Amino acid sequence: MEITFLGTSSAVPSKYRNHAGIILKYFKDTMLFDCGEGTQRQLTYAKISPMKIDKIFLSHYHGDHILGLAGLIQSMGFRGRTEDLNIYGPKGLEKLINVVSNYGFFKIDFNINIHEIGEGIVIETDEYIIRSIIAEHNVDNIAYSIYEKKKPRFLREKAIELGVPVGPSFGKLHNGEEVEINGKIIKPEQVLGEPRIGKKITYSGDTRPCEKMVELACDSDVLIHEATYEDKDKDKAIEHCHSTSKEAAEIAKLANVKLLVLTHISSRYTTDLNIKNEAKEIFENTAVADDFMEIKIEKDKAKIRFRKLLSLNEEQA
Amino acid sequence: MEITFLGTSSAVPSKYRNHAGIILKYFKDTMLFDCGEGTQRQLTYAKISPMKIDKIFLSHYHGDHILGLAGLIQSMGFRGRTEDLNIYGPKGLEKLINVVSNYGFFKIDFNINIHEIGEGIVIETDEYIIRSIIAEHNVDNIAYSIYEKKKPRFLREKAIELGVPVGPSFGKLHNGEEVEINGKIIKPEQVLGEPRIGKKITYSGDTRPCEKMVELACDSDVLIHEATYEDKDKDKAIEHCHSTSKEAAEIAKLANVKLLVLTHISSRYTTDLNIKNEAKEIFENTAVADDFMEIKIEKDKAKIRFRKLLSLNEEQA
Repeated sequence: MEITFLGTSSAVPSKYRNHAGIILKYFKDTMLFDCGEGTQRQLTYAKISPMKIDKIFLSHYHGDHILGLAGLIQSMGFRGRTEDLNIYGPKGLEKLINVVSNYGFFKIDFNINIHEIGEGIVIETDEYIIRSIIAEHNVDNIAYSIYEKKKPRFLREKAIELGVPVGPSFGKLHNGEEVEINGKIIKPEQVLGEPRIGKKITYSGDTRPCEKMVELACDSDVLIHEATYEDKDKDKAIEHCHSTSKEAAEIAKLANVKLLVLTHISSRYTTDLNIKNEAKEIFENTAVADDFMEIKIEKDKAKIRFRKLLSLNEEQA
Repeated sequence: MEITFLGTSSAVPSKYRNHAGIILKYFKDTMLFDCGEGTQRQLTYAKISPMKIDKIFLSHYHGDHILGLAGLIQSMGFRGRTEDLNIYGPKGLEKLINVVSNYGFFKIDFNINIHEIGEGIVIETDEYIIRSIIAEHNVDNIAYSIYEKKKPRFLREKAIELGVPVGPSFGKLHNGEEVEINGKIIKPEQVLGEPRIGKKITYSGDTRPCEKMVELACDSDVLIHEATYEDKDKDKAIEHCHSTSKEAAEIAKLANVKLLVLTHISSRYTTDLNIKNEAKEIFENTAVADDFMEIKIEKDKAKIRFRKLLSLNEEQA
């Protein structure tokens, strides 16, 4: 599970932050969450091929989350893509893709599968589940949670008690198959523990803090939550249906997540120190995302690697 | 007359080159020629406010020249613009603006005046003229020429011969007013020389080399011409209706321009040395545009200032 931030600004981009975009590499899939203007070029900087993206998840249809879609799709066509592209988003996706498909002269040779979604299971594969809720923004905004399916614990003592001999039958039962022992059928559920989930990340899109976010983010390894404003601008957060970093931290605490990563930072602030420190007062394990920051989740631990644009480092030096 | 390149790539952006966009500051106007994806952010880097742009001229409707329009317009709205925005472009502009106006949820409080144009005079003010031709691309592509109106020379000897006394009457006649001298009307055309033009720049958009470009660019101080390909890829230039740098240089030579600036460079090349040198063999005073390069035309001389992104410098160092 590897996360790369392509853009971390709110409505107005800055020299340091491009519009929203997050890449999630997960099993064999490369997924893109939101696609602000300039995403195709940010991918170049991040050395990720746009051709590898097979699923795009949009939180909502404000420009800073979707204006890169036209360029990304045209670029895929230009490079000769033939594989289907799956796009997920709230109500209105079909209209949006229709607009994008008419933006200038171009030709693509691949299908775009449009998935207008609400709340519930968005995708379930053998390996993972993606679940969505509608959060609290001034337009429909979908928050996504992605979590690994993990086999329940195998109750070894219970199996032995039921007469299952130590050996290949253990593996079969753990993989969900029945076995026959001396003419008696042993079912997996007899020897398996409670359902478990593996690594989990949650992305809020744009939202006011809300209970549904707490429930969706519950026990996440990483919660990526918007934090457009500092606490002193809470009135603006309320007016524009965004969150302050303090409010995001409250959600992280209530949801018992391991790491909170703040993004969608307003370009009005010349430093993100207040954003970070105000959150840390409430939830210690907080980071503020930068463009090109990477997070690798390995064995229950999230490792963060900052990889700012060279220009930024030079200017700060 | 001050030119700033915001983007200099062709269809695919690179780390070093964003999609097409050129700012021209001219008298009190700030004009934008083409508006590729990411233009609003490039403006931030160039320290030019998008609010100052009052006229946008589009060459044609391929994505790399227009996908930044939606973001730029939404950004103007977000910042509270109320002044009209004038957009010029070939046939199809109304449809394009309709698409852009439906790309996501947003609200703007200013009018967009749509000017679908063909060949001829696009704008004539007291100070300058903008003229257009349709060049040779695989879709309608407009090339623009912008030139200063310059008063014709005042024929002092002729005026004296006609009995005009040295004094304020000279100024009136030079400014196009008639004067009466001893009951006799003297008309300006009797004492003015041939029509003259002042500083002139020409921008090709995307095109094969063509005679109309030579005619449009004639005697320009600066010709900004596309040079997508090196000479060895001339077959691709022909196939995709673009120019090689050699071909652009031939146009510059035939049009007797002072400075040729090459742009729209394919990202397939890791260096622009061949692009430059192949052109220089034919037309010595050639430069290859970089993002954020500025050209100031002062007293018949064009001064170039390179202002590459710090990241580029650092990586090259």
